Amino acid sequence: MKRIKSTVAYDGTNFAGYQSQPGLRTVQAEIDKALRKIHKEDTVFSVASGRTDAGVHAWGQVIHFDTPLGLPIDRWKTALNVLLPKDVRIVDAVFVNDDFHARYSAVGKTYQFKWSASEVQSPFERNYAVHLEKWRPDIERMREAAQYLIGTHDFTSYCSSKTATSNKVRTVRKLELEQNGEDLIMTIEGDGFLYNMVRTIAGMLFAVGIGWNEPLDIKEILEARDRKRAGKTAAAHGLYLMNVTYND
Amino acid sequence: MKRIKSTVAYDGTNFAGYQSQPGLRTVQAEIDKALRKIHKEDTVFSVASGRTDAGVHAWGQVIHFDTPLGLPIDRWKTALNVLLPKDVRIVDAVFVNDDFHARYSAVGKTYQFKWSASEVQSPFERNYAVHLEKWRPDIERMREAAQYLIGTHDFTSYCSSKTATSNKVRTVRKLELEQNGEDLIMTIEGDGFLYNMVRTIAGMLFAVGIGWNEPLDIKEILEARDRKRAGKTAAAHGLYLMNVTYND
Repeated sequence: MKRIKSTVAYDGTNFAGYQSQPGLRTVQAEIDKALRKIHKEDTVFSVASGRTDAGVHAWGQVIHFDTPLGLPIDRWKTALNVLLPKDVRIVDAVFVNDDFHARYSAVGKTYQFKWSASEVQSPFERNYAVHLEKWRPDIERMREAAQYLIGTHDFTSYCSSKTATSNKVRTVRKLELEQNGEDLIMTIEGDGFLYNMVRTIAGMLFAVGIGWNEPLDIKEILEARDRKRAGKTAAAHGLYLMNVTYND
Repeated sequence: MKRIKSTVAYDGTNFAGYQSQPGLRTVQAEIDKALRKIHKEDTVFSVASGRTDAGVHAWGQVIHFDTPLGLPIDRWKTALNVLLPKDVRIVDAVFVNDDFHARYSAVGKTYQFKWSASEVQSPFERNYAVHLEKWRPDIERMREAAQYLIGTHDFTSYCSSKTATSNKVRTVRKLELEQNGEDLIMTIEGDGFLYNMVRTIAGMLFAVGIGWNEPLDIKEILEARDRKRAGKTAAAHGLYLMNVTYND
């Protein structure tokens, strides 16, 4: 048996999220279907770094799977891409040691959240950025607010009330906002993220940007450790899983 | 009655083309449905500069329609966009004289055709560019071939055999190829185009680029005035109607 680590990109628009669910089209189900075709058996499966919600995109999801096949490593990418639908692409595949685990070995993740400030939303961006309509958030206010979230904190206030994990302490290493043409992009990097954490942070920074909240509210809400204090989570289709990092 | 000229952008992916067809989702049907809602009557309709095929996109399709309503011109864009699905957007709307006609007043059109040379096709580009797979066309050969098509010619060889128009003489004013990152982009401007003409030209220039044809073949095929001489038309999802020009 050899273990393969693979980077996967997907357009989340037409998926009911990453994780397999009976009767729904999911990224994991498509990948596992392709793996089962290659292996001609039903017990092969992939393990991902984590799930993503319906509509969320990925440039750099990471999975692993085990294979008894003798296929050279440079053939795996093509072999899988031929079988996968075009909204899921295997970007690379490498052999790794048996102790590598896409989820448990991950030491960091980077997400981006994208808003578009075009006057009329481009029809080509409708699934790939949240349109700002008439809003023009003040990026400096958002940057000021972002500072309060960097570091190691209990993020109870900034995750879904449905979060199952009891330990809600996470470390945000980087939280940056930048203007890219008409797009406003938030980049967040951390050791891991709670359910809906990135979208809740995006939603709150937007609220600060348009004046609904003050930058200092972000700190106060964080310290309250109460999910009811944070506002609406930002929409899924603005979110991208950019990469997952591992210690080599 | 006032006549309104409007620029329309659309993502052609989920449409069976521009023109209304019974039982199919088309751009024209969506626009006319929105117009009928605003006017609360069934006889309003729009006229476009021309149709586009299923899968073909537009940044700058132009339509006109007549309205008895007193809505200020700056409200039309929003009024229509609220009613339209997000893959069709009204980019602007202006009042024009009664003698303006989106189709008959047009004096020029610009199309772009986009190929992507990324090693693995981005899942986000699957509907918006033709992936070059392992092919790496020689842009200089394509540019050489393009020269033979510029000017006024009978384009019988470079349109669909289903073209209804008997006069197949058209003027190509500009035909350029450029590299934009990993994308190869063909821009073609002319007084008008025959059915499938842009995609047939794109297909033939690609064939020259990868060595299936010589640049001089493009001239020879043009002079043959025989559709059977040109190769396959390039796929619809690489094509964009960029703009339509009118004399002011």
